[in-house]
Amino acid sequence: MNRKQLIEQIKIKKSFLCVGLDPDLDKIPSHLLELEDPIFEFNKVIIDATHQFAVAYKPNIAFFELLGPSGWQSLKKTIDYIPKNILTIADAKRGDIGNTSNYYARTFYDTYGFDAITIAPYMGSDSVTPFLRDDKWAIVLGLTSNSGAMDFQNQLLQSGLKVYEQVIQTCSQWGSEENMMFVIGATQEKYISDIRKSIPNHFFLVPGVGAQGGSLKAVADAGLNKDIGLLINSSRGIIYAGNDQDFGLKAQEAAKEIQLEMESVLLKSGLI
Amino acid sequence: MNRKQLIEQIKIKKSFLCVGLDPDLDKIPSHLLELEDPIFEFNKVIIDATHQFAVAYKPNIAFFELLGPSGWQSLKKTIDYIPKNILTIADAKRGDIGNTSNYYARTFYDTYGFDAITIAPYMGSDSVTPFLRDDKWAIVLGLTSNSGAMDFQNQLLQSGLKVYEQVIQTCSQWGSEENMMFVIGATQEKYISDIRKSIPNHFFLVPGVGAQGGSLKAVADAGLNKDIGLLINSSRGIIYAGNDQDFGLKAQEAAKEIQLEMESVLLKSGLI
Repeated sequence: MNRKQLIEQIKIKKSFLCVGLDPDLDKIPSHLLELEDPIFEFNKVIIDATHQFAVAYKPNIAFFELLGPSGWQSLKKTIDYIPKNILTIADAKRGDIGNTSNYYARTFYDTYGFDAITIAPYMGSDSVTPFLRDDKWAIVLGLTSNSGAMDFQNQLLQSGLKVYEQVIQTCSQWGSEENMMFVIGATQEKYISDIRKSIPNHFFLVPGVGAQGGSLKAVADAGLNKDIGLLINSSRGIIYAGNDQDFGLKAQEAAKEIQLEMESVLLKSGLI
Repeated sequence: MNRKQLIEQIKIKKSFLCVGLDPDLDKIPSHLLELEDPIFEFNKVIIDATHQFAVAYKPNIAFFELLGPSGWQSLKKTIDYIPKNILTIADAKRGDIGNTSNYYARTFYDTYGFDAITIAPYMGSDSVTPFLRDDKWAIVLGLTSNSGAMDFQNQLLQSGLKVYEQVIQTCSQWGSEENMMFVIGATQEKYISDIRKSIPNHFFLVPGVGAQGGSLKAVADAGLNKDIGLLINSSRGIIYAGNDQDFGLKAQEAAKEIQLEMESVLLKSGLI
């Protein structure tokens, strides 16, 4: 899915919501555990319930990988089930020497058919550039939402930039706004407007709203650009809104509530 | 496998060789392609041929992941086949928010039974510490062997340290020499002796000898410590030494040659 198509979907749905799929056998409703593939059945209900409010799904690969080979079968079925007008993001945080990154790109783009993958930038250019392709997205970790983000990302370089600023500035030269996004944590709201100034056109994938404490409105105020430029992720707040037979309905209500807040933000900003 | 057991194995085998398992359907001998699980059959021959010269095996997870769910079955069979007195390292370069890193740790340590996993440190403490366990090893990327290593790892901080030095110094305080190692690329030989001074006791996992151009002797001169403290990896130079019916024999010869060089180094250093 390319940038134009993504923006079009956001405007049609009046939503820049990404639903994070973190399916956990210890948390999904117990009645699903009797089925042959509980993880897929859970995702299927969530997708059915939320797809009209979401423009992206982001499976967290760790939750599938934990289950062994069958987890990857559930992942493949999940990706195949997601409507084609919705962006699919492998939250995999891969990154290795060029030769190996190329394998990871083939895995997620070709074997599984994802539109996008999250990338850890520590190993530099040859670890990132294999993920750049037309109509695909390398989503590079910029400033993350977790407490550990302060340990290295926030260190000040002699150049005057912080590490995350250097990462964003350098990586944005390898890719373009057509094939690269950045992960910017919602919990970092005081930094988002400065990051937006440094890269006015790139999309940000923003985790951390909800369970991790970030505010949708604050992120939107600081991060929206003329093409919207934001995908805000919510995982646990939607998929575990309920944990009984009606968990799909609960997820739908939670997704719709966020979509309505997004619609209001987009209207106020004159973007729709 | 704990530190004492690892050092014991190195002394018994007079080798600190780690064999990298990067099985590629495009490169393995063609007669294997007729078998039901060519990737496992290839690894099996390589392990049979090299286990007496190696103290560690390092499957590169990208090569298995590319093949879809069946690749993970081949991986599991490979790990189960490796003799228990040999360290198994998942070269996976994982790292995510604490909750998710915990899932990755469970995946590689519990679902697949690895002794160790390589970790990308960009996301900081909560992304690294879930991999710290007794008798297991978090192997953190310090200074990597690829060209892109210069992009961010080598940037100078206002503290006077380079990013990789800060990463090594900070991470080494989270773990200990009993549960943490660092990836230090063989192509970075001019930096290795300084890194050794900063962390005298930790093991280094050193990729980049062979295909990437690093020298075993230079790495050993700079990196050995009183407990040896090095695992030097060779992948392509061993596993693709041959590509015909006799590829096991060729791999064995290549592994033995490296082991003999290591034995000579250990003898000259008075470590055995």
